[in-house]
Amino acid sequence: MRTYLDWNATTPLRPEAKAAMREGMEIVGNPSSVHTEGRAAKMAMERAREELAAALGAEGADVIFTSGTTEAAAMVLAGRGIHCAPVEHSAIKVWCDQDLAVNRDGIVTVTDPAQASLQLANNETGVIQTLPEGLGSSDLTQAFGKVPFAFNWLGVTAGFVSAHKLGGPKGVGALIVKRGTDVQAIIRGGGQEQGRRGGTENLIGILGFAAAAAAAQRELDEGLWDQVAARRDALEDRLLAAAPGAMIAGKGARRLPNTTCLLTSVWKGETQVMQMDLAGFAISAGSACSSGKVRASGVLQAMGFDDKAAQSAIRISISPALGDDQVNRFADAWESAYSRWRERNG
Amino acid sequence: MRTYLDWNATTPLRPEAKAAMREGMEIVGNPSSVHTEGRAAKMAMERAREELAAALGAEGADVIFTSGTTEAAAMVLAGRGIHCAPVEHSAIKVWCDQDLAVNRDGIVTVTDPAQASLQLANNETGVIQTLPEGLGSSDLTQAFGKVPFAFNWLGVTAGFVSAHKLGGPKGVGALIVKRGTDVQAIIRGGGQEQGRRGGTENLIGILGFAAAAAAAQRELDEGLWDQVAARRDALEDRLLAAAPGAMIAGKGARRLPNTTCLLTSVWKGETQVMQMDLAGFAISAGSACSSGKVRASGVLQAMGFDDKAAQSAIRISISPALGDDQVNRFADAWESAYSRWRERNG
Repeated sequence: MRTYLDWNATTPLRPEAKAAMREGMEIVGNPSSVHTEGRAAKMAMERAREELAAALGAEGADVIFTSGTTEAAAMVLAGRGIHCAPVEHSAIKVWCDQDLAVNRDGIVTVTDPAQASLQLANNETGVIQTLPEGLGSSDLTQAFGKVPFAFNWLGVTAGFVSAHKLGGPKGVGALIVKRGTDVQAIIRGGGQEQGRRGGTENLIGILGFAAAAAAAQRELDEGLWDQVAARRDALEDRLLAAAPGAMIAGKGARRLPNTTCLLTSVWKGETQVMQMDLAGFAISAGSACSSGKVRASGVLQAMGFDDKAAQSAIRISISPALGDDQVNRFADAWESAYSRWRERNG
Repeated sequence: MRTYLDWNATTPLRPEAKAAMREGMEIVGNPSSVHTEGRAAKMAMERAREELAAALGAEGADVIFTSGTTEAAAMVLAGRGIHCAPVEHSAIKVWCDQDLAVNRDGIVTVTDPAQASLQLANNETGVIQTLPEGLGSSDLTQAFGKVPFAFNWLGVTAGFVSAHKLGGPKGVGALIVKRGTDVQAIIRGGGQEQGRRGGTENLIGILGFAAAAAAAQRELDEGLWDQVAARRDALEDRLLAAAPGAMIAGKGARRLPNTTCLLTSVWKGETQVMQMDLAGFAISAGSACSSGKVRASGVLQAMGFDDKAAQSAIRISISPALGDDQVNRFADAWESAYSRWRERNG
């Protein structure tokens, strides 16, 4: 029996998403076809678009379905001379000048909002930013479904979201823009998505995304993530008590309710990931995307942690699917592994 | 009870694809994560990649998963000064100089193969091209699963395929390139697909694609598409006998076994699509992608048909899922609608 504490990397598919996708598997037509089968496919897709917009608080905005945040970001950021901080996800950083300042708590200072991209929440530390009015774009991927927000009240022109961070399928996401914003298509031909994103749509994935987003929003409304926050805080208290000198990155800032980035400064993060994996727990060191190649986290370095501290980081990201028991069993396993490591390494 | 004769627009999901996708729905991890859950996801994805390569005869080539042919084409064609013919799909044409010559049968003359893109089969007429050795790229979307070929024997550097044309899900496809070919990523960050296509992979879609491709290949091996060709030929004989002066576009060329592009030169294609839809049959006028806005097919105009002929075109595309009965019922319905139209219009 394994325990999955890597929610920020990806989430299991929600039952609601599975049901919507199974229904989607029976839809025959191409949403671009004008016959009955085509119109049925189109109608299902447009219902999903409205459902997603409602979950995002983006009613009236333009929702453009993509293969994920990475594609959505490329559509808005590529070749525009946008500025960001080094705490952004690599899908954002790759297109930007990484020259915005970051403080020890992970808070970014934005100088020219219209020419900047700033994440709402960080994937590694969970640190939540206050978005400046008039911000050009924001990676909403980690925040969506974990903390309440409405796109229409964020004051940003464009937002990026991915289904698989809130119980939807991998490989589907959306670009949300204020209605009528000029978007340069990078995938062209066919004229889908109002000419902003060509190619026959991932209909099954889109239906799963919308169903997952609606379910995630309900969970949030019902206060399930407040329980997650309480459980996470208790976990952090235990870990800090067990490991003298350890730190939680971003603890001074407002954070996602489920994310703990723990730095012991002595025990390598990659070793902990492997030991916990053998003990039956999935955690990560840094983001999943870069976790193949093990290196110090750029996010933590930008926050002023030295290489040794950054290399010792592990990320534990939990969810309402995990109860006290499972989180406590993880804390037990980690503490006992840490004690063994201390015994061997003085 | 409806009859779907629009196979070239999109196909229903095969049972094998559904089963693979349902299994995929239970996979928890992110293929980029190093823990047990991540490695299981990665292994499933790599098995799918091998299965797809085998179905394509592309063993040893690089298979890069994308959101479909439209994305794969953009990766290879954008900004490269590539030449193509006006018979290509809009996802190809949008990036190319459309200056290659097309004859009355739809056959394209390629002048500089390395700087050209040429489809293996046309979506509207089914016309099959002989690809010149050293061709830069080929849209294999319509041919894949309907006629036998092996990527490794085509002599092309890059090929594009989409799952939803052979019983896989919409919104997933692949770019196939000779091993080691330089591919410039347009969706970046995260380093997935060997740095050639960033973003968490559409794992469920990928599993469905591979399963559908393998099943399609088995059907082809078993000779099911020869039966389709016989059924299609009989259908064409009936339609041509019923409508004096009607033509089949590309009839003088080798064509896909399932595709009929019928031109009466008198009766508008869009009217036929609507009448047949009301009668319970899904066909199309032109490609699905452009069928929202009704206009004469650029493919047929390039073949030298005048506007009146091109505007009268309907595409009937059948499959092994349809028996003689269903195809004959369509011919009955079309013939009786055509007779009524003749009576009203002299």
